[in-house]
Amino acid sequence: MAKMIAINAGSSSLKFQLFEMPQEEVITKGLIERIGLNDSIFSISVNGEKQEEVTDIPNHEVAVKMLLDKLTSTGIIRSLDEIEGVGHRVVHGGEVFNDSVIITDEVLEKIEELSELAPLHNPANVTGIKSFQNVLPNVPAIAVFDTAFHQTMPESSFLYSLPYEYYEKYGIRKYGFHGTSHKYVSERAAEMLGRPKEQLRLISCHLGNGASIAAIEGGKSIDTSMGFTPLAGVAMGTRSGNIDPALIPFIMEKTGQTADEVLNVLNKKSGMLGVSGLSSDLRDIESQAAEGNERAELALEVFANRIHKYIGSYASRMYGVDAIIFTAGIGENSQIVREKVLNGLEFMGIYWDPARNKVRGEETFLNHPHSPVKVMIIPTNEEVMIARDIQRLTV
Amino acid sequence: MAKMIAINAGSSSLKFQLFEMPQEEVITKGLIERIGLNDSIFSISVNGEKQEEVTDIPNHEVAVKMLLDKLTSTGIIRSLDEIEGVGHRVVHGGEVFNDSVIITDEVLEKIEELSELAPLHNPANVTGIKSFQNVLPNVPAIAVFDTAFHQTMPESSFLYSLPYEYYEKYGIRKYGFHGTSHKYVSERAAEMLGRPKEQLRLISCHLGNGASIAAIEGGKSIDTSMGFTPLAGVAMGTRSGNIDPALIPFIMEKTGQTADEVLNVLNKKSGMLGVSGLSSDLRDIESQAAEGNERAELALEVFANRIHKYIGSYASRMYGVDAIIFTAGIGENSQIVREKVLNGLEFMGIYWDPARNKVRGEETFLNHPHSPVKVMIIPTNEEVMIARDIQRLTV
Repeated sequence: MAKMIAINAGSSSLKFQLFEMPQEEVITKGLIERIGLNDSIFSISVNGEKQEEVTDIPNHEVAVKMLLDKLTSTGIIRSLDEIEGVGHRVVHGGEVFNDSVIITDEVLEKIEELSELAPLHNPANVTGIKSFQNVLPNVPAIAVFDTAFHQTMPESSFLYSLPYEYYEKYGIRKYGFHGTSHKYVSERAAEMLGRPKEQLRLISCHLGNGASIAAIEGGKSIDTSMGFTPLAGVAMGTRSGNIDPALIPFIMEKTGQTADEVLNVLNKKSGMLGVSGLSSDLRDIESQAAEGNERAELALEVFANRIHKYIGSYASRMYGVDAIIFTAGIGENSQIVREKVLNGLEFMGIYWDPARNKVRGEETFLNHPHSPVKVMIIPTNEEVMIARDIQRLTV
Repeated sequence: MAKMIAINAGSSSLKFQLFEMPQEEVITKGLIERIGLNDSIFSISVNGEKQEEVTDIPNHEVAVKMLLDKLTSTGIIRSLDEIEGVGHRVVHGGEVFNDSVIITDEVLEKIEELSELAPLHNPANVTGIKSFQNVLPNVPAIAVFDTAFHQTMPESSFLYSLPYEYYEKYGIRKYGFHGTSHKYVSERAAEMLGRPKEQLRLISCHLGNGASIAAIEGGKSIDTSMGFTPLAGVAMGTRSGNIDPALIPFIMEKTGQTADEVLNVLNKKSGMLGVSGLSSDLRDIESQAAEGNERAELALEVFANRIHKYIGSYASRMYGVDAIIFTAGIGENSQIVREKVLNGLEFMGIYWDPARNKVRGEETFLNHPHSPVKVMIIPTNEEVMIARDIQRLTV
């Protein structure tokens, strides 16, 4: 029995989940927000009850100390010695990391170098790692990369049709993200199907505020919709997904914005928010569409249509598909999106049952029993993947 | 019996094809190149023999006069009065033109206004139109738009998930191109299949130096791979097709290029040329790949892989597909590309016969006789579509 903590550090936040391993029991979890700002918020669940505290937390190291104090003061753990491993989610592992790894000085240096590819995320992840190193210097820590699972993509999938030297010189290629989630649901799907993952061709739809689709063959990611950055692929809450690249110079000229400003529009003001003009939150879009708002209906169509097309695209990529998986906030909860995505795919052996689609957030099959292609909802669990990797790498 | 001439004017070129209508007989065809430069080249086929003349042709109007002189001096026509209609290919018809149209002052003005959307093409098309107006002022002329056939796309296909006001204010949407070709082959496919086009779901692959795929349902384009410009979609000879849009600012920063310079790289130095580092010409790529050049093999894989995925994507879009069509230079002639595109699609009812694939540039079926989905090669003929539209609109 060992306690292991999974950490997801953002620029002003720190999410945590403490596990008893190898049972994979969640002992507590919580979130620290507004780190470095006034009125930071510390939330933690103690004996199943959520406690919230508002106070000033100047930096991540103070946040980590506060978290550890809380764990002992509430009796969640008796002493810090019980924590036998820390796992950090790191967004970008580039081509350096194709698996989770124990953090050494050299690893940390590489992660910092890779900040160039993920300037908004890797530096925050590094801050989280260093804070734990300072507070728990003797506890082994690992890094779990969003990109690692996709490192199995063949060159024909990951290479852009750009001048080849852009790949060689600048690392410009498709990396893909949400890898930990795609890996989790694909492994869980194999269990639910009672078949070895090596024999399966899966299409995993991670649909949250960010959304990506992955083609997973024999347990390995062979293609995914996100690209060099998490902007690419399908339309998302506020992100455009793929557009004609020629639009960037055109929009710059028309609106007088710089390239970076246009990129900001593509990341923050596009997607469902851009099309609907209402909200980036699918729940708002769905309720407005239900009330007859045409732009909301259009945003929903645009969102689902792109995912629907990826299903066909990735089935082609794998010469067929055995199961479609829906996960993450929208994938687990939106009946309408799942319906629009799945409609009309009988030609490729997907027979789903609308009655079975009336569920939210639970592991289940949506297909007719005899459907050649299975359709499943699998709530994602990136935290348990981090805990498992701590176990695998440090014990 | 009436003679009608189909014109495709580029910035320094003029392609022509003279038809006897309604028989659709090609009386002559040819090309004038290097207009406005020294040593312009005038090529024309006279009684089946190609004649070439090198001379200085200062502008398009002189080119048109020279062409018409040639037609009478060689006896191809007895007098200019025999020409009863001129049809001009125009690249961009925006949302204004959803069909070919007789050119009036107002139409010409609209085409000039649309130059904003096709700055490299519409101005040249306008020059061609005006030259014929000056030389043959009494002959009716029509414009045939590359975009018109795709105007049937529903909003969920043509709208980008960008702020909606970009569509309203700047006309930013997917237009699609190669419409005349997609229309021709889809109509011809219906004839070859002996079924009304209204009942068919077709995927048309126009694969030339530029390449686009279209989903054609009930005779109407409902989706296509090119976008706001002909840069989008699949990889092409020198064009990148879709990439992560975030790459443009990244490449700008890394290479010190402006947005327009990066756009130029995406248009001129990417695609098969960029990946292979060898050539934009598929024939070169194929022969280098056959000799074991890995980058050539990779360029071929990247090219075919994207098209292969579009087949699945558009089959999903239409809830199934009745026939796949290959057309244009590569589509009509490359066995290797067709093979790579078609491989592994049995799961969606595509059974093709490698023995039947050993053909170049002829109308034929590639599928097994009992394949639920038919596969066909149909050499494109945009010129005859222009001649037919002259006939339809002017007679």
